[in-house]
Amino acid sequence: MKKIEAIIKPFKLDEVKEALQDVGVQGLSVVEVKGFGRQKGHTELYRGAEYVVDFLPKVKVECVVGDEQVDPALEAITAAARTDKIGDGKIFVSTVDQAIRIRTGEEGEDAL
Amino acid sequence: MKKIEAIIKPFKLDEVKEALQDVGVQGLSVVEVKGFGRQKGHTELYRGAEYVVDFLPKVKVECVVGDEQVDPALEAITAAARTDKIGDGKIFVSTVDQAIRIRTGEEGEDAL
Amino acid sequence: MKKIEAIIKPFKLDEVKEALQDVGVQGLSVVEVKGFGRQKGHTELYRGAEYVVDFLPKVKVECVVGDEQVDPALEAITAAARTDKIGDGKIFVSTVDQAIRIRTGEEGEDAL
Ligand SMILES: Nc1ncnc2c1ncn2[C@@H]1O[C@H](COP(=O)(O)OP(=O)(O)OP(=O)(O)O)[C@@H](O)[C@H]1O
Ligand SMILES: Nc1ncnc2c1ncn2[C@@H]1O[C@H](COP(=O)(O)OP(=O)(O)OP(=O)(O)O)[C@@H](O)[C@H]1O
Ligand SMILES: Nc1ncnc2c1ncn2[C@@H]1O[C@H](COP(=O)(O)OP(=O)(O)OP(=O)(O)O)[C@@H](O)[C@H]1O
Ligand SMILES: [Mg+2]
Ligand SMILES: [Mg+2]
Ligand SMILES: [Mg+2]
Repeated sequence: MKKIEAIIKPFKLDEVKEALQDVGVQGLSVVEVKGFGRQKGHTELYRGAEYVVDFLPKVKVECVVGDEQVDPALEAITAAARTDKIGDGKIFVSTVDQAIRIRTGEEGEDAL
Repeated sequence: MKKIEAIIKPFKLDEVKEALQDVGVQGLSVVEVKGFGRQKGHTELYRGAEYVVDFLPKVKVECVVGDEQVDPALEAITAAARTDKIGDGKIFVSTVDQAIRIRTGEEGEDAL
Repeated sequence: MKKIEAIIKPFKLDEVKEALQDVGVQGLSVVEVKGFGRQKGHTELYRGAEYVVDFLPKVKVECVVGDEQVDPALEAITAAARTDKIGDGKIFVSTVDQAIRIRTGEEGEDAL
């Protein structure tokens, strides 16, 4: 199992969520973050205004998926989150050793 | 060392925290998240009302523990978080390579 | 690639951010958390007042870096976050399998 963390523009959350559901992702969590990437010190357009890029609001979408779902999920996120303007975001993938669905006690990919 | 991430119902936080402390967990962090699992599009009971399950508020408890604490911690969380109703949550376990306690400079399991 | 998660005192965020930038870290994300460490049940000084340590506000800084940046980043965070008082925080390091820069499609360390 893999955890996919995608830090995206907040207004893209619904599109990314739908794209993930379209490839079969059954659950996800969203956290509000603030951050910056390579333009730190330069400006980024946010809500029509030029901002100094020092901690812009982003949302982080976290979903744990089975190994065979990783590539479709990455393609779905990338396509849905892209605006071709700076600040579109980053995706990080890491390994998950175990998953448990609390209500049923199911483990592993069955728990997702 | 392992990181345990438990996404639970917010009103269960105190019980989960106490259950973890009872098995010797010495530190944890809590983040507010919103999310959904398999009932997306169906309804889940939240504060007595029927909700369309499109991002319900949850809390994520994160704790890094020594390898021998993983199983007791998972049992503690599962028992404390379960209500037997949908939406009880998910637990994910992943590997942590290094830990540092900033004040003392201790590293590894000594730092937890 | 490694993910560094540093849970620090909120007023130390700017110093930690600058210390990371000084060693070449190009991006990071910040999440508000609440948590406790080993003094649970004892008191910790927060904004000049004695608090019972039951979930104090902290910030979690997350940055994904190339392997050769891990040690400088850990030293930067430790030096910048330390006050030598309890509650200075914890740093956790874990492995990241893949990174994608959404706008450009770059992958791996090139994406950071
Ligand atoms: N190395 C990193 N570690 C952790 N979070 C990061 C990292 N790089 C970027 N982020 C997060 O992703 C968000 C979006 O980054 P962003 O898309 O601006 O990256 P970028 O490399 O500057 O790409 P672009 O040139 O397209 O803007 C940041 O605000 C931050 O929250
Ligand atoms: N695959 C996943 N990846 C990341 N977060 C998830 C995933 N599945 C669930 N979550 C998070 O856990 C929360 C609780 O999930 P939930 O307990 O509803 O899972 P479920 O599979 O639908 O089980 P149940 O049938 O008992 O409701 C969600 O709101 C979401 O925040
Ligand atoms: N094992 C852990 N897992 C996850 N988060 C932790 C853990 N330990 C501490 N934290 C987080 O780090 C924050 C700061 O911890 P803290 O610095 O108080 O650790 P400590 O071991 O008590 O060290 P000190 O004695 O210097 O206070 C906590 O509020 C919590 O959010
Ligand atoms: Mg950028
Ligand atoms: Mg559910
Ligand atoms: Mg402490």
